[in-house]
Amino acid sequence: MAAPGLAIRVNYPTLQYLTAQKFNYGGRKLFFVKASAGSTEAEEANIIVRKEKYGWQPDFSGGMRPTPILDTINYPVHMKNLSVKELEKLAAELRAEIVHTVSKTGGHLSSSLGVVELTVALHQVFSAPEDKIIWDVGHQAYGHKILTGRRSKMHTIRKTSGLAGFPKREESVYDAFGAGHSSTSISAGLGMAVARDLLGKDNSVVSVIGDGAMTAGQAYEALNNAGFLDTNLIVVLNDNRQVSLPTATLDGPATPVGALSRALSKLQASPKFRQLREAAKQGITKQIGPQAHEVAAKFDEYARGMISSSGSTFFEELGLYYIGPVDGHNIDDLVTIFQKVKTMPAPGPVLIHIITEKGKGYPPAEAAADRMHGVVKFDPKTGKQMKAKTPTLMYTQYFAESLIKEAEADNRIVAIHAAMGGGTGLNYFQKRFPERCFDVGIAEQHAVTFAAGLATEGLKPFCAIYSSFLQRGYDQVVHDVDLQKLPVRFAMDRAGLVGADGPTHCGAFDVAYMACLPNMIVMAPSDEAELMHMVATAAAIDDRPSCFRFPRGNGVGAVLPPDYKGTPLEIGKGRILREGNRVAILGFGSVVQQCLGAAEMLKSHNILPTIADARFCKPLDADLIRRLAKEHEILITVEEGSIGGFGSHISHFLTLHGILDGPLKLRSMVLPDRYIDQGAPQDQIEEAGLSSRHICATVLSLLGTPKEVVNFV
Amino acid sequence: MAAPGLAIRVNYPTLQYLTAQKFNYGGRKLFFVKASAGSTEAEEANIIVRKEKYGWQPDFSGGMRPTPILDTINYPVHMKNLSVKELEKLAAELRAEIVHTVSKTGGHLSSSLGVVELTVALHQVFSAPEDKIIWDVGHQAYGHKILTGRRSKMHTIRKTSGLAGFPKREESVYDAFGAGHSSTSISAGLGMAVARDLLGKDNSVVSVIGDGAMTAGQAYEALNNAGFLDTNLIVVLNDNRQVSLPTATLDGPATPVGALSRALSKLQASPKFRQLREAAKQGITKQIGPQAHEVAAKFDEYARGMISSSGSTFFEELGLYYIGPVDGHNIDDLVTIFQKVKTMPAPGPVLIHIITEKGKGYPPAEAAADRMHGVVKFDPKTGKQMKAKTPTLMYTQYFAESLIKEAEADNRIVAIHAAMGGGTGLNYFQKRFPERCFDVGIAEQHAVTFAAGLATEGLKPFCAIYSSFLQRGYDQVVHDVDLQKLPVRFAMDRAGLVGADGPTHCGAFDVAYMACLPNMIVMAPSDEAELMHMVATAAAIDDRPSCFRFPRGNGVGAVLPPDYKGTPLEIGKGRILREGNRVAILGFGSVVQQCLGAAEMLKSHNILPTIADARFCKPLDADLIRRLAKEHEILITVEEGSIGGFGSHISHFLTLHGILDGPLKLRSMVLPDRYIDQGAPQDQIEEAGLSSRHICATVLSLLGTPKEVVNFV
Repeated sequence: MAAPGLAIRVNYPTLQYLTAQKFNYGGRKLFFVKASAGSTEAEEANIIVRKEKYGWQPDFSGGMRPTPILDTINYPVHMKNLSVKELEKLAAELRAEIVHTVSKTGGHLSSSLGVVELTVALHQVFSAPEDKIIWDVGHQAYGHKILTGRRSKMHTIRKTSGLAGFPKREESVYDAFGAGHSSTSISAGLGMAVARDLLGKDNSVVSVIGDGAMTAGQAYEALNNAGFLDTNLIVVLNDNRQVSLPTATLDGPATPVGALSRALSKLQASPKFRQLREAAKQGITKQIGPQAHEVAAKFDEYARGMISSSGSTFFEELGLYYIGPVDGHNIDDLVTIFQKVKTMPAPGPVLIHIITEKGKGYPPAEAAADRMHGVVKFDPKTGKQMKAKTPTLMYTQYFAESLIKEAEADNRIVAIHAAMGGGTGLNYFQKRFPERCFDVGIAEQHAVTFAAGLATEGLKPFCAIYSSFLQRGYDQVVHDVDLQKLPVRFAMDRAGLVGADGPTHCGAFDVAYMACLPNMIVMAPSDEAELMHMVATAAAIDDRPSCFRFPRGNGVGAVLPPDYKGTPLEIGKGRILREGNRVAILGFGSVVQQCLGAAEMLKSHNILPTIADARFCKPLDADLIRRLAKEHEILITVEEGSIGGFGSHISHFLTLHGILDGPLKLRSMVLPDRYIDQGAPQDQIEEAGLSSRHICATVLSLLGTPKEVVNFV
Repeated sequence: MAAPGLAIRVNYPTLQYLTAQKFNYGGRKLFFVKASAGSTEAEEANIIVRKEKYGWQPDFSGGMRPTPILDTINYPVHMKNLSVKELEKLAAELRAEIVHTVSKTGGHLSSSLGVVELTVALHQVFSAPEDKIIWDVGHQAYGHKILTGRRSKMHTIRKTSGLAGFPKREESVYDAFGAGHSSTSISAGLGMAVARDLLGKDNSVVSVIGDGAMTAGQAYEALNNAGFLDTNLIVVLNDNRQVSLPTATLDGPATPVGALSRALSKLQASPKFRQLREAAKQGITKQIGPQAHEVAAKFDEYARGMISSSGSTFFEELGLYYIGPVDGHNIDDLVTIFQKVKTMPAPGPVLIHIITEKGKGYPPAEAAADRMHGVVKFDPKTGKQMKAKTPTLMYTQYFAESLIKEAEADNRIVAIHAAMGGGTGLNYFQKRFPERCFDVGIAEQHAVTFAAGLATEGLKPFCAIYSSFLQRGYDQVVHDVDLQKLPVRFAMDRAGLVGADGPTHCGAFDVAYMACLPNMIVMAPSDEAELMHMVATAAAIDDRPSCFRFPRGNGVGAVLPPDYKGTPLEIGKGRILREGNRVAILGFGSVVQQCLGAAEMLKSHNILPTIADARFCKPLDADLIRRLAKEHEILITVEEGSIGGFGSHISHFLTLHGILDGPLKLRSMVLPDRYIDQGAPQDQIEEAGLSSRHICATVLSLLGTPKEVVNFV
């Protein structure tokens, strides 16, 4: 369900594929509005946009310069009287604004650049917030945020107490539905449309969904239901031929996966359609008026007739009225079509298929292999990102590296991901073992059961899915993998806190929802070397399912195993990292590092706690836990996850065996609800109350240290 | 994902719709093989099948009589030399065997009857277990079980230590993939097909999926991926026009929901296609031979050309080679087509669309509005089921009744289910409020987000989904409902133990996976009156999501609220049912009844425990728990759910507040892993170790009662 935030990024050695694709693509350039009306405004020389061959383009050669039209738009209502030419300029200014804003904050860049014209056209024609505009995934909504009263707060995006990186209902009435995960917009939109009908209202509902998100089963379920209910709903299919995210491969964008993308391409490439569309365009006047509406209606009917005669489309089979493909960078066309659809009395569900280019209008993004999908701060002139040099790599990369080592030794190892080759690091695996790596598209449900099918035949599948995205394949994990005891290995990246991506991406629940399953082995590494050993362990576990969760972010500098190949761990055995007394701190996962930090802090209080690394939540290390409980007065468990996870398994074990009947003081430190819900992108461990300082304070408090001292920690 | 087991059943006042549909349906009868060859065997008079106008039919007028052909088939290999005529007889005998078997055991009947010819044809042409046959959902696999070495064990089906009601890998090598939930077969089959290719094997893989299961997103994700990977895979679409289960409405089968079903009907109804098919049939000889293969190939090409010229199908858009529609009760055609497809060198993924009739060949099932989908024991002559009279109704019905009462008082209440109108009781709601009830098809993901969309506009959605099926909408629960704090109400039926449906349907995990979410209110009623109050409570909670779980089975005879309308409970407040001392037993959900039973048993040991009904797992009743902990030596929590649920929340609370630091003995009684995994359809509470006897024994043991006495309980 892919909205990978700042995904793992790699160097792209060549742009050949991208360049070729640009020119092969079905005559898109023909669609561009050749605005021939003279432009004589001398003052325009100093503003951010300038007229170029194909329309208005932002100028990135200097700093941010005046944006006279954008400056007049605080809310969409201010756009209503703009001419098409002004809307085009507004779009160019908006594009410049996005580039300059994101250059200072980092964030999702190219998706928003690709829908600038769409955003302007939608807000011109529809009247949000009465009309509902739902952005699928939502990382393309920066322009929408700027036009809906949040321009002045854009510098706070993805920061603590700042704007969210995705639409968020509590942030603005213009954000009709929150997002972060993909493919939910049609379902939500259909619910809003049905509610409108039941309540006797007459607003429009528009769901904007990408072609990548369209590969998810939920989108299909919703289309099928929309076609059946036949209520008025507008689906804008934003087709940028990015079925897999551009971070999917090491050598540039991946060929779109999934058969549907072929069907879409067929539509786009149809020469008959292009000819027709050009002919129809002749009749469209540049002004929007009643006459133009009639022409537009005619054009739509033509278009529809044309498409239908060459075979009904996928969407028509599902009961949607199909319009397209439309040049998604042509505001004139977009406005015309939206106005037409908006005023049709009862068209039922309509799908408007628009073609856009990710990163459009910002040359560095257009040239980059990943289209600058997710970026850190960068120089707007050049697009060069200001990446901090780090001494270690991301956990993701250690995972990928060690999986490759396992796969070199065992040709039964295969890897599956759901449109997240970059985010999961499997692009490295793909490069090394192209036949043994499967990108199934944004389709976590299928990914899991597909892996189960591979496992039945004796292969050793590793299914790499982010913690929060695996929620979408949960029933498949239970029903197809766990209850059948099939040895599928789940690599759950982005477990625990994820920083700026916020609550939707927080991997808080995986231990609760995986460790309650009967056959599952549940692991979490305390550092990157342990991760490599757990990859080896999972490869070795071939009689039941297993999973290991690891965090977003960089390794801690642990000594790596020789040749990056891990050694299988004994199942259900943890380890003691420091022997101490009175207090035992038992960490699960990377938060063990905070436990070690707490031990350092406690030294100054003359407290030497025992620090243990649980390694396994299921099965638990019974001997270790008994020992910790028996030999200490206090046992503290720490995990970067919700209630119901590791701490719950520990307390269940302790109570079951009567070990808590005595004076042992047990405390479970978990992610608190308020943190999971709200998220806090900066100082996350601190905000969540799981930092070394918090652990230290908990220990001191339990030992009866005076409050003044504890508070000083 | 609907495989509802023995769903709630109702009286159907009329069969008008069914009758009408039968004759309206696109000329299906034309397809029937009119076996004109003379049949002179006199001895056939005494066997179970007799020749009728349209072929061999079982005779249900007497008891079970000889089945001479079936008796020779222990495994599919024994079928290889049978003629088409013999296969037809075998099918009729198999049909009789299924009816007689299920009449004695109860179980799923009509789905298996509908695929008798398909089952025979598949096992004749393909060589399981090398060739993989995957039955989606799996309740249609009784014939498959009989033909694959399990005929003699069919009387144990759905019983403790007996055969499972669904395919199960550990039961037989012929069960290529386990099932129970729907729409997984194409994903699993694709995995097996890819594994075959990687391992250099050449077996066939056949996924058999119903048109209902085809509405689930996972099926689409898998088709999309299959069309892309282009490996050899055979998908048999078993189209019995049952997109929603026949239990969906009170007045007979529901009109299939979802736009896809319209597309399928279009294919079936095409007169041009029918003409062509009849013409093609003229050329097909009855024997199977090389010549017939050529003709069959021609026929397929014709069929394909014909379909394509009238518009490419949905499946072709997804990259599958489409063949059909085929009469699924015509063994000759099925065998011919399967042989053809099997021998094609590299066709890629093929979809064979067959039309069948649920309950086919057993007149009582054909006549029944629900087609006798899931039945208890019945008289094979008449189809009359031997239902035990019960003094109370199912929890499901109390839920439906009280929801209707709430909806009468508040017109913002709407209801959503996923093809389970019968199973969830919402058929009653549908009848009362047809405009406010939404059957979205087998599409739990969409159901949840659709409900979220309805909630954004101020409606009050109740989303009724079985506990184990809600796993399929889990990400939507987290991402679209909980994190947005939208007031969607989840009615989780079949929570906890579910009896004969087995592990796939066991609602073990819901409390763990729901109560870990930040905003969710989690309730469970201890009896049917409490359920009605919780429906009222959920209706009243309008600022956040809520859920309540209730079990399969009948109410306990509690005094119901006047007019069946509940009264909202105070959020987060439990209640004490019996005041006692020393021991507190705190139950969550219907297992409170076992706690009360334990109290009775403990009386004879002169122990008077306090019995409390938690009502809420989230938020917990802090006062109640403190009091129970403070005033008793022992606190036992009991729940019909996995680890990570209610007991975990209690122990987390107690440890967090230091209440477990002292001598209190806490024990959490939950469903043990081994039980969830294996299931035990009879004496379930007993087997799971959650009976009154177990609770009583736990108390006695903790109080230091001698082992001999405890064991005697």
